[in-house]
Amino acid sequence: MEFFKVVSPEEAMASVRGFSPLPSEEVSAFDAIGRILAEDVRSPVDLPDFPRSTMDGFAVRAADTFGASESIPAYLDLVGHVPMGEAPSFGVGPGQAGRINTGGMIPEGADAVVMNEYTSTPDQATVEIRRPASVGEHVLAVGDDLKAGELILAGGARLRSQDIGAFSGVGIISLKVHRRPRVAILPTGDELIDPRETPRPGQVRDINRFSLAAAVIEAGGIPETEDILPDDLDTIKERLADAVERADAVLISGGSSMGVRDYTVEAIDSLGEPGVLIHGISIKPGKPTIIGRVRRGSVDKAVVGIPGHPVSALMIFHAFVRPILGQLSGKTSPEAALETGIPALLSRNLPSAPGREDLVRVKLERNGQGMIAHPLMGNSAMISTMTAADGFITVPLEQEGLKAGTEVRVTLF
Amino acid sequence: MEFFKVVSPEEAMASVRGFSPLPSEEVSAFDAIGRILAEDVRSPVDLPDFPRSTMDGFAVRAADTFGASESIPAYLDLVGHVPMGEAPSFGVGPGQAGRINTGGMIPEGADAVVMNEYTSTPDQATVEIRRPASVGEHVLAVGDDLKAGELILAGGARLRSQDIGAFSGVGIISLKVHRRPRVAILPTGDELIDPRETPRPGQVRDINRFSLAAAVIEAGGIPETEDILPDDLDTIKERLADAVERADAVLISGGSSMGVRDYTVEAIDSLGEPGVLIHGISIKPGKPTIIGRVRRGSVDKAVVGIPGHPVSALMIFHAFVRPILGQLSGKTSPEAALETGIPALLSRNLPSAPGREDLVRVKLERNGQGMIAHPLMGNSAMISTMTAADGFITVPLEQEGLKAGTEVRVTLF
Repeated sequence: MEFFKVVSPEEAMASVRGFSPLPSEEVSAFDAIGRILAEDVRSPVDLPDFPRSTMDGFAVRAADTFGASESIPAYLDLVGHVPMGEAPSFGVGPGQAGRINTGGMIPEGADAVVMNEYTSTPDQATVEIRRPASVGEHVLAVGDDLKAGELILAGGARLRSQDIGAFSGVGIISLKVHRRPRVAILPTGDELIDPRETPRPGQVRDINRFSLAAAVIEAGGIPETEDILPDDLDTIKERLADAVERADAVLISGGSSMGVRDYTVEAIDSLGEPGVLIHGISIKPGKPTIIGRVRRGSVDKAVVGIPGHPVSALMIFHAFVRPILGQLSGKTSPEAALETGIPALLSRNLPSAPGREDLVRVKLERNGQGMIAHPLMGNSAMISTMTAADGFITVPLEQEGLKAGTEVRVTLF
Repeated sequence: MEFFKVVSPEEAMASVRGFSPLPSEEVSAFDAIGRILAEDVRSPVDLPDFPRSTMDGFAVRAADTFGASESIPAYLDLVGHVPMGEAPSFGVGPGQAGRINTGGMIPEGADAVVMNEYTSTPDQATVEIRRPASVGEHVLAVGDDLKAGELILAGGARLRSQDIGAFSGVGIISLKVHRRPRVAILPTGDELIDPRETPRPGQVRDINRFSLAAAVIEAGGIPETEDILPDDLDTIKERLADAVERADAVLISGGSSMGVRDYTVEAIDSLGEPGVLIHGISIKPGKPTIIGRVRRGSVDKAVVGIPGHPVSALMIFHAFVRPILGQLSGKTSPEAALETGIPALLSRNLPSAPGREDLVRVKLERNGQGMIAHPLMGNSAMISTMTAADGFITVPLEQEGLKAGTEVRVTLF
């Protein structure tokens, strides 16, 4: 007796593709850290906009140093010292040199810098050069770092410290980033109470509302948690309809009971096209997952029915909700870390039913050779198996299990 | 002519060990995401505190199902349906069964649950069981998830979504976490201007103040940026003294000119013991790094003189400042990802001078076999080589370079 039509994880993934990036908003470059850039940004100026020294030393004409060596140094006339932050008041003619510090402006006529290490100043008016310089050596030419009009960063990139630095270097102090996805979280379950309350027999404190909200924050979204919904079709319909208008994605968690699962399906379908696309995935944990989409204007809102078991809830979040939030955030490519995971050797045989994808929590341990992944067993109702885990591995649908010693890739939490 | 005594990266690392975790503060579990737990947290209660079903099905006495099969099912009297969130009003005696949903409370007398899949109800008072249940099957016993007094999470852990979930499940709604490190950032350099301004000849827009502040945020700290300091010993001394009192760590960036490097050393030493420990590291980029410590009470404040080149500044932050902030944050172990990096194959030969550690920026590319790391060359004065990079690899001191095709580990930015 099957209660729903189970599809492959691949089919389920297909149902969470094609969400449009959210509109952009303008934020100060400083507040943009970790946000997703909404448009290509090009440099408005050349960086640097004057030739700069990259070393402490002497600005010279390279030709004057050709053949210079420890035994036969070149001697040049020291004609000045380039002040920092100003154009030098002197030029460097044939046979001349100017003292310069890192970042200083190369004087007119000079085309290279000789590092202090290869020089000495026998008197205040002379510099001894013990090594030849090539043209352009230790000089950052105009636009060497960034040329006016050159792409600094493409839209869809997650902004990191160096990007903020590059923008400040060319005078860009505000940026267009995609709005963060707002994710409504609707907990259901007549057995649930707020964690602050003391459970009566048969009651349990709500876990998923809090762990899912935290997971939304970790994924760069803004959680909007709601009070616990009763197992009642009309209430679920009404609150779901409201959440779909307000939020960019809706997670309806639980329904431990079969009744609520049916209500969730009916409620999602009542909100409009295309409605429920997936009801049941051949994945463990998380089989009774529901994935729906509801169109509002030209935009699809995701509505995901998250299984009630706390482990299932978070694993389904990682597998299907994170990719949705990534698309809404406008991210063009998943981060390399998430894509590939940490390589580790499996500590023991891991059986798995063929025809089902297993997401197995693991604890990582470092030994002499590298990382060892210890699978954590235990029921998906047990949140403690998640707090003990460093990440998870995926045993694909077609595989009957993995042998001890297999190299696996661990996706970190 | 050497301007400072260069030490190995290993010696430099030794100088940034032994910083004490900052004091703790109490925050709501919800605000604790990503923060570092300041004490071991044990469960105040058993979770669950009543035996629960982990499946939709029928609560039975396992003994009544022994030998049940498709061909010879067991027939039990259906005596009730367990309501969600309440203690069942009935017990399960020999030959009896009660309908139960996932999360429901196991009735007195029952010791197993048979999944719906292996049952049918020929009439309203009878349930047919087609598979034997073992004692405890599909039952979460009292304390199976967490026992009262059991450790949920050890101090020093970074709090993740599942941890927040586990705490809410046992009624813990506020947590002691380490205070975030406050990091003062003092930019120096007479050539620097605020990014909002238009540079005159010889002037450049400040990069490091912004990229370092962003890096502090990425590392979980709170940046306190200051106005650009002039290259003046008294001002540097005064502002540094002030920053050391106020902040947990101080980054004094730049001093492109040798003068400021000397001033920085003198200013750090003037603040008290132990003063400057490192002045120059055999690392590229970042050789002219200064590492000092200043004791205040029983606590050491880190004072790091960060090289002025924007690439050097961020790489030295990753190599030496992040570890300091990790210790101040109270983190007990580095995250697995940072420790091991993403495996990739080097796309081409990478020369490196022996006796120097090279931090080489790379761009990652996925091909059929896995990840390829393309080294990005270019001067450490060019921030654009950092915006193009996905991460970096380390070529150790003793190595003369790496051959194309070598497996490397990429630390992501």
